Amino acid sequence: MEKGTATPLTKPLRCIVKLGGAAITCKNELEKINEENLRAVSIHLREAMMSGEIVDMDWSKRPEKADVSVDVDGISDQITLESSNFVVVHGAGSFGHFQASKSGAHKGGLDQSLVKAGFVATRISVTSLNLEIVRALAREGIPSVGISPFSGGWTTFQRNVASADVTTVAKTIDSGFIPVLHGDAVLDHSQGCTILSGDVIIRHIAEILKPKYVVFLLLTAVDEEGSWRVVNPAPKSMNEQVEITVAAHDTTGGMVTKISEAAAIAKLGIDVYIVKAATDHSLKALKGEVKGKIPDDWMGTAIRFMRK
Amino acid sequence: MEKGTATPLTKPLRCIVKLGGAAITCKNELEKINEENLRAVSIHLREAMMSGEIVDMDWSKRPEKADVSVDVDGISDQITLESSNFVVVHGAGSFGHFQASKSGAHKGGLDQSLVKAGFVATRISVTSLNLEIVRALAREGIPSVGISPFSGGWTTFQRNVASADVTTVAKTIDSGFIPVLHGDAVLDHSQGCTILSGDVIIRHIAEILKPKYVVFLLLTAVDEEGSWRVVNPAPKSMNEQVEITVAAHDTTGGMVTKISEAAAIAKLGIDVYIVKAATDHSLKALKGEVKGKIPDDWMGTAIRFMRK
Repeated sequence: MEKGTATPLTKPLRCIVKLGGAAITCKNELEKINEENLRAVSIHLREAMMSGEIVDMDWSKRPEKADVSVDVDGISDQITLESSNFVVVHGAGSFGHFQASKSGAHKGGLDQSLVKAGFVATRISVTSLNLEIVRALAREGIPSVGISPFSGGWTTFQRNVASADVTTVAKTIDSGFIPVLHGDAVLDHSQGCTILSGDVIIRHIAEILKPKYVVFLLLTAVDEEGSWRVVNPAPKSMNEQVEITVAAHDTTGGMVTKISEAAAIAKLGIDVYIVKAATDHSLKALKGEVKGKIPDDWMGTAIRFMRK
Repeated sequence: MEKGTATPLTKPLRCIVKLGGAAITCKNELEKINEENLRAVSIHLREAMMSGEIVDMDWSKRPEKADVSVDVDGISDQITLESSNFVVVHGAGSFGHFQASKSGAHKGGLDQSLVKAGFVATRISVTSLNLEIVRALAREGIPSVGISPFSGGWTTFQRNVASADVTTVAKTIDSGFIPVLHGDAVLDHSQGCTILSGDVIIRHIAEILKPKYVVFLLLTAVDEEGSWRVVNPAPKSMNEQVEITVAAHDTTGGMVTKISEAAAIAKLGIDVYIVKAATDHSLKALKGEVKGKIPDDWMGTAIRFMRK
């Protein structure tokens, strides 16, 4: 690690939130945002981290309007814009996936024209998604600031994080902003380049900034049929030190992978919640209302380190 | 300086190019790109730094089309995508200016709601311009990669650069890409935040990466009436160590400021050319064709360090 190994925060980090790519984009349409879900998630995030008046912080041109649509002069200093310390990290969904998989940018090899062009194309796609998410959050009054991992000096070695500027993330939080990072195409010291996933970014930031809890907002974390149940104590087949509250009939490989990523975070002593985006359950998780005893009617997956 | 004080490049940096905000945007219309100029400048940049076939590297959705419009499968490994080492830095023009000036984000004071909101709004605006410029360059076959100074850990102290991750800029170049930076809203250690101009970024990168020459592409660097003349040797009123080839009837304060910024770069021993964007003169400057004796018919301003 070149940078960011010791980065104290003035105020502790409350939460890292992952916005799953599939939850905020339309999976089957190239570069299409799921506006409804993104708006709902943005409102939930504001409710979880802020109180008081809503100040629209996206003063850029909107598609339907020729000029600024925000009443900037109405922003008085009576309004306080305090937010608790959150970090947002989002996936790519239908942004970046086509470009990366078509070019093989995740496998490296920048001497190949297709990989090099695909690397450029992938970064264009994921940064355009980041911009749209930052704008959506800013419109809801969240002082969001985009931090692109490539720009922030995140690199990998054999696809593990080799360098990362977590100092900038910490300074951004300390200045009262909400950093918004994303899965990105980055340089890799062994194979030239790769794709750094949002989940790996979260684990790395969690290790250094020690949030109280981490929430993964996914498209389908909960079986709508209500087939989830609380498994307590932890099943012996899982790591014994980690308590997992998990669905009985979870068949998706993606979910298992997600749980093992999350388990690595839980082992740091950080509670992890995996929950369907834009639901009452996700709002509860974001607010930290499932931090202690999990309510009986809460639907989602909780992963916790068991102190012996 | 926390980072990036010694950053060697495998191959020397040939040129840093500033795309003036006024040259690539429409000054009097909020967040409007000057498509014609941007396209012409992109073509010139490609001609100056690359040869061979053009590979479109912007695979994102275009406004007029629902799906990918690039023939990705046609990108064969017979095509070489070598470019000489350039860095592009652009200004803000009609992006960011409204947001920054309306909020006073350049004067700092993040405890004020208006400044905080304006900081968020400014970053949204300038990063959306950066994305458009990266896309325009990528469409012309330039392997451009956006690096946002805020994300790259650029901060200021009393509005001078306090930290900057030039290492990432260097690694990007060494990996065969063209970094595209921009004037940005950044954190300031004395006043909370400020606006870091593209010109200051260029001077800082030039100090560390020592380009052979620097080109400022402006909207109106040349008086169309042809009232420019070569002043040689340098007038006594200027720094005697710097030779300036300057217009006789330059009355713009902006131009004088630009020249003094440029003079600071020239003092590092780096030739600086200030020239009207999207002209034959700017193409000559970008190609380095005015590096030695300046052609009689070349219109622009050259600033050079005179070795005694």
